[in-house]
Amino acid sequence: MANIIPTSRLEAFSDGVIAIIITIMVFDLKMSSPLSAENIWAEVLNLLPKFLSYMLSFIAVAIMWVNHHQLFHLVSRTDGKLLWINMHLLFWMSLIPLATNTLGASPFLPQSNAFYGFVFFMNASGFAWLRQYAAKHLMPHEPLQRKERAKRKGYMGMLIYCLAILLSFVSVYFSFLLFIIVPAMYFMPDSFAHETND
Amino acid sequence: MANIIPTSRLEAFSDGVIAIIITIMVFDLKMSSPLSAENIWAEVLNLLPKFLSYMLSFIAVAIMWVNHHQLFHLVSRTDGKLLWINMHLLFWMSLIPLATNTLGASPFLPQSNAFYGFVFFMNASGFAWLRQYAAKHLMPHEPLQRKERAKRKGYMGMLIYCLAILLSFVSVYFSFLLFIIVPAMYFMPDSFAHETND
Amino acid sequence: MANIIPTSRLEAFSDGVIAIIITIMVFDLKMSSPLSAENIWAEVLNLLPKFLSYMLSFIAVAIMWVNHHQLFHLVSRTDGKLLWINMHLLFWMSLIPLATNTLGASPFLPQSNAFYGFVFFMNASGFAWLRQYAAKHLMPHEPLQRKERAKRKGYMGMLIYCLAILLSFVSVYFSFLLFIIVPAMYFMPDSFAHETND
Amino acid sequence: MANIIPTSRLEAFSDGVIAIIITIMVFDLKMSSPLSAENIWAEVLNLLPKFLSYMLSFIAVAIMWVNHHQLFHLVSRTDGKLLWINMHLLFWMSLIPLATNTLGASPFLPQSNAFYGFVFFMNASGFAWLRQYAAKHLMPHEPLQRKERAKRKGYMGMLIYCLAILLSFVSVYFSFLLFIIVPAMYFMPDSFAHETND
Repeated sequence: MANIIPTSRLEAFSDGVIAIIITIMVFDLKMSSPLSAENIWAEVLNLLPKFLSYMLSFIAVAIMWVNHHQLFHLVSRTDGKLLWINMHLLFWMSLIPLATNTLGASPFLPQSNAFYGFVFFMNASGFAWLRQYAAKHLMPHEPLQRKERAKRKGYMGMLIYCLAILLSFVSVYFSFLLFIIVPAMYFMPDSFAHETND
Repeated sequence: MANIIPTSRLEAFSDGVIAIIITIMVFDLKMSSPLSAENIWAEVLNLLPKFLSYMLSFIAVAIMWVNHHQLFHLVSRTDGKLLWINMHLLFWMSLIPLATNTLGASPFLPQSNAFYGFVFFMNASGFAWLRQYAAKHLMPHEPLQRKERAKRKGYMGMLIYCLAILLSFVSVYFSFLLFIIVPAMYFMPDSFAHETND
Repeated sequence: MANIIPTSRLEAFSDGVIAIIITIMVFDLKMSSPLSAENIWAEVLNLLPKFLSYMLSFIAVAIMWVNHHQLFHLVSRTDGKLLWINMHLLFWMSLIPLATNTLGASPFLPQSNAFYGFVFFMNASGFAWLRQYAAKHLMPHEPLQRKERAKRKGYMGMLIYCLAILLSFVSVYFSFLLFIIVPAMYFMPDSFAHETND
Repeated sequence: MANIIPTSRLEAFSDGVIAIIITIMVFDLKMSSPLSAENIWAEVLNLLPKFLSYMLSFIAVAIMWVNHHQLFHLVSRTDGKLLWINMHLLFWMSLIPLATNTLGASPFLPQSNAFYGFVFFMNASGFAWLRQYAAKHLMPHEPLQRKERAKRKGYMGMLIYCLAILLSFVSVYFSFLLFIIVPAMYFMPDSFAHETND
């Protein structure tokens, strides 16, 4: 029954949810007490891990928004199942503020890092599911190479977050590194693209 | 005078409000203190009922959004009264974060469950009112079968939430079960549809 | 320079701000501690004035949104000054959550009522300014009767809120009554309309 | 790959984020305890600097929104890089609530003022970057005079915020003055415009 909803609505609602998620995280960035000449450096140091985890999550959500729109630019129609796969993705995106807050409050605890990695793993796999469902059912004429590359990229992200979960229990510095690698990867010149001549 | 407002505006405003409602609930999902190796399981256990009530409400709001759009896809024009019936629905939707927070904070108290049930009962009846007003005044050519089925579905939801309110005072496990049944019902193959050959 | 911005953008931005204002107020509606069989009635009684002031503000903001859209349905173009008169209105609307919160926290204090009345007085006058600027510069062909009626309605709202400010220092029950009269007036059959045969 | 996203989407997402930023700041405007006849003036005095910094930031964000839309009214297409330069701007805009909150909580501390100035300096330079990238790559036919004037305006804002950072360590009253000058400048008749006969 839901198959009659056009893409524009789905995009607008997703945009609203993503805009709120990306902005609401900043709400946890607050000095815990009014600043004075005495407590200022203690407060700033206290805020620093929260700020860094906010920045990391902002970039990750921004990348997801860009990908979401690139995908829905290609998809011209929707069906009920796509709508719910998208809702599934939005659910995991909505947990990003919680994961960011948890990591920012206790950055050196393995479990915080594992949880942060888990939420982003679910986001990566949620997006991969959305991408593959759309590719199979709604974009029959998409070039195979692009389909394959998108699939590979998705698996890569899932693998890295999976590694981050596991390695956080060895040392949180591994997971820090891996959390930074995903956005970095996104902005680096795409070598896979050249391989596949796309 | 309000009858000159097109549907697009109504949908956009509703979308904004629903996107905020669905996202703002996550704001209560927070560890009550920075995690450490000692307090982590206590904190997680403490968060669990809040998380489960969040998930339940997320799914319920998602279902309402899907229904809202299916309805307004069928309705091409609006009048002042529809606008206010929609506002009435948005009012009860706006109480969902309060009900979710209350249930998450004290899940085993009958009154929390009764209140959660009451808010969703009002949502179900608010949506049924919207559906029936639109069916009568703005969709004169809708097939009678579809009209009847939508009505039956609405009454079913209202009945279940009504039962949840009453049974929460017998045992909160009855209301837990009933709160899960409504979303489950939505995703199950629609046997009524087959009966009516629609 | 701002005169090149089309109305659609102004409306969309206003919609976003109003949707957030109307929803964010619900965030203050929270039990102050987890409910238990012992504290439940104390908590509910404590929440009641907050709930009532929320309901009052929800209705008032809903009315403003309906009026805002009716107005911009009539206005087809915008100029830089209208944009800023609208921003001025949004500024005063953005103070509604503060006024609602203050009234809900101390409903029997004259100053809370006076402040609530003041914020809504500024909203009413902000809207009247927007209405009159638009009527004069952007809707030259509007019937004079409608123009006059809108003016009168605006002055009426401003007068009532003005009275509410003054009378709150005599008894807060006067201001309660006046705060309820404005929405009630809006929903009552419009006798002025009949007088002017419009 | 991101170059296929039309401008409308970029604007809608930016609108959403800006609407949330401008509204969410009001959330910190709260009496710290329920008002009573005794504490009311202390509470109001306590709220005053927060209110003033809110008002200042509201006006600044409103100006940025107006400028953002004027710019994107001129730009008809987007590319991937513009999308990310816009995201960079939104990141610094998202820090405005933190800067506002910090300044409001400790208005007479040089560091609060310096931080407020820094965040707005980054916003001004982020906007200048966006303006110049768009002017160079997406608006080849823009008159040189307008291009030059926009550049000059951008540098002027950056310079003033830079001065505010430095002078805050001499006296916070200098930075207060400079923070007020930028919005005031925006509303004053544009003498540069007359000089360049545009």
